[in-house]
Amino acid sequence: MKLLEEKILQDGKVINGDVLKVDSFLNHQMDPQLFEEMAKEWQRLFEGCGINKILTIEASGIGIACIAGLVMKCPVVFAKKSKTSNTPEDSFSATVKSFTRGTVNDIYVSKKYLSPDDVILIIDDFMATGEASKGMVQIVKLAGARLAGIGIAVEKAFQPGGDELRAAGIRVESLARIREMSSENGIEFCED
Amino acid sequence: MKLLEEKILQDGKVINGDVLKVDSFLNHQMDPQLFEEMAKEWQRLFEGCGINKILTIEASGIGIACIAGLVMKCPVVFAKKSKTSNTPEDSFSATVKSFTRGTVNDIYVSKKYLSPDDVILIIDDFMATGEASKGMVQIVKLAGARLAGIGIAVEKAFQPGGDELRAAGIRVESLARIREMSSENGIEFCED
Repeated sequence: MKLLEEKILQDGKVINGDVLKVDSFLNHQMDPQLFEEMAKEWQRLFEGCGINKILTIEASGIGIACIAGLVMKCPVVFAKKSKTSNTPEDSFSATVKSFTRGTVNDIYVSKKYLSPDDVILIIDDFMATGEASKGMVQIVKLAGARLAGIGIAVEKAFQPGGDELRAAGIRVESLARIREMSSENGIEFCED
Repeated sequence: MKLLEEKILQDGKVINGDVLKVDSFLNHQMDPQLFEEMAKEWQRLFEGCGINKILTIEASGIGIACIAGLVMKCPVVFAKKSKTSNTPEDSFSATVKSFTRGTVNDIYVSKKYLSPDDVILIIDDFMATGEASKGMVQIVKLAGARLAGIGIAVEKAFQPGGDELRAAGIRVESLARIREMSSENGIEFCED
């Protein structure tokens, strides 16, 4: 998606070789007008798939997912990273490794909000090793729901997550796919 | 706001006397169409205030704030509950007590995204003791920005947060104000 790629080139910063800072418009300060254009693109890509619910994960997925839900006229559920007053029996859960933080966390979705009748679009801001998406895919399976696919804002295509999910037969639509990046040479996107 | 009050009466549940569960449409599953109506109401209430930025806090404030930003055509910044790769010198921070969880946490906003030129609307899903809002007010002050006010979805008006902030001269616009609630007698809203 040209608009997002241009925004990344204009405002994104590569630090320490493999960290892309896009916190001026994506995951700290957020640009809702840009999110609406991204949502329209996912709507176009997944048209006719019968999506009736969006699943994302706190925190930085919530903004884009909510605006996608507004555009696609469906509710949004976010997976939580800590248990709340719900008991485990009330929730679907999956384990998510974070390679950047070196942590392992369980994520939770209340059983009330996912069912076998649902056709789910997973939305998230970033994909690198794909652990968060894999955890959400696992939760969709546990719920017996159907997965239409995954919509990602920025995929680090030089990391394995996206290709592993595609190899597993899951449709992944990333609006910007970074082929390589470095502090010296900047950012190069995959050709369509 | 009648629409939100009706939704709370229809789908909200009072548990353990003082916990209002609205996770079917507000803070786990989210209803973006309802959020859009709420955003329009805040837009109406704060019209002419010159708001150019919305501040919220992760996680459950992000959805309503993003849709408010879309409606009010301004960027949204969310305060983070943990330090990221930014050093403290890069961030405004404030301390927030959570009475429900019995914890004390610092919240952070990058100095890049708040400035003395900004006129800020703080948005959050809930207000009880008001600690999260007070932390965000503190951050707006540290940035030297102007605070237009605070927009809250659900205020527990029987807890002191909202009135304390109003007594400090801050405009607080809560779309549903709960006067009292109990598992036995249900939910009563404040009269306008």
